[in-house]
Amino acid sequence: MTELKPNWPRYVIGIVIYPGMTTLDVIGPQTVFAGLPNVEIHRVWKTLAPITGDDGMVIEPDTTFTDCPPVDVICIGGGRGQSAIIDDAELLDFLKSQGEQAKFVTSVCGGSEFLAKAGLLEGYRAATHWAARPKLAELGVEVGTERVVVDRNRMTGGGVTAGIDFGLTVAKALYGEDVAKISQLLMEYDPVPPYDVGSPEKAGPELIEKAMQYMLQTMGPMP
Amino acid sequence: MTELKPNWPRYVIGIVIYPGMTTLDVIGPQTVFAGLPNVEIHRVWKTLAPITGDDGMVIEPDTTFTDCPPVDVICIGGGRGQSAIIDDAELLDFLKSQGEQAKFVTSVCGGSEFLAKAGLLEGYRAATHWAARPKLAELGVEVGTERVVVDRNRMTGGGVTAGIDFGLTVAKALYGEDVAKISQLLMEYDPVPPYDVGSPEKAGPELIEKAMQYMLQTMGPMP
Repeated sequence: MTELKPNWPRYVIGIVIYPGMTTLDVIGPQTVFAGLPNVEIHRVWKTLAPITGDDGMVIEPDTTFTDCPPVDVICIGGGRGQSAIIDDAELLDFLKSQGEQAKFVTSVCGGSEFLAKAGLLEGYRAATHWAARPKLAELGVEVGTERVVVDRNRMTGGGVTAGIDFGLTVAKALYGEDVAKISQLLMEYDPVPPYDVGSPEKAGPELIEKAMQYMLQTMGPMP
Repeated sequence: MTELKPNWPRYVIGIVIYPGMTTLDVIGPQTVFAGLPNVEIHRVWKTLAPITGDDGMVIEPDTTFTDCPPVDVICIGGGRGQSAIIDDAELLDFLKSQGEQAKFVTSVCGGSEFLAKAGLLEGYRAATHWAARPKLAELGVEVGTERVVVDRNRMTGGGVTAGIDFGLTVAKALYGEDVAKISQLLMEYDPVPPYDVGSPEKAGPELIEKAMQYMLQTMGPMP
């Protein structure tokens, strides 16, 4: 390993947050980002009004689309609220203009659908939540089933918890392997999932069917 | 697997949030909890004023200590802000009174230090962030190095990301294995950490030393 450097390059990171988002989608990677040596993080939305996630957590934006400087990394997550704004022109314009100049264009979970709608995934492979793969494919995106898909400067994570693996991948891209390893250790990311059912391939059709029934029963149909 | 049940038992879950907390500590498990079939979740603090985490994310409590009903699950996380309030009488009284009647007394990361200070870990084993193990041991707690430690009705997770494994463990305790498996699948928790350095045992002394230097350099000394 090389020695830690005293003069770290500076990066501006923009995380789009919105009503009905799954907060963990972005709180996973934002925890990685917040520990990076020299970053400026903006949590961006149309207004600064508090936002309620689909998990009921209320979080606050700190920057509006209008006030957001050009970012080096643009990131957006998914959530049950995404369908309500998937064609929102103001949001898609923001993503497009930031994405066209950013070093890295990124998403977690269903967030890749926003990138696709903004025209930022044409000719790229990308990941999404397993249940959203058909939808992303319909938008002409080549869907990767890996947990994190890196295609040139597009970095996209799979469902919800994949945001942590994704965040560490971005950390490496920005500051190198040492910092990514340190971040992983400080977040104690040595997962021991209780079951081996975290992907559709591992879960199998019976559990997938049960999960779909369960979602309908507990949360109602996807909006 | 058994069939999903239509009439799920109801549980009240109280998550203590506070200034300088690591939001991911509790947003991990709260994402699991929010997907459970019949729960009432309270995000509790002294006042309803917005709270800034040690990652810069601003989140909002929805319930004060005074207004919080008796909970079935009490949970608290850690963070760089914890030392400022580790002896706060109002907080410790709340934890103690809730903990004495709750079905499950729980924490993630450094949050176990609060439980210990409230007298809730006497004679129990518990987990904490790897860097906080000596501190927890000093409080007379038998420190477990597993990612999630379950000792009778005490359930405690290790550092930061262990909150997800912990949350799934609580889900199983409340609603059984089917629901825990479905939760894991819906959160796509099939982790692929980029490196094998997520615990101090795996990281080894050189990376641990580097991580300590890095924290000092980027965040300053632990308060």
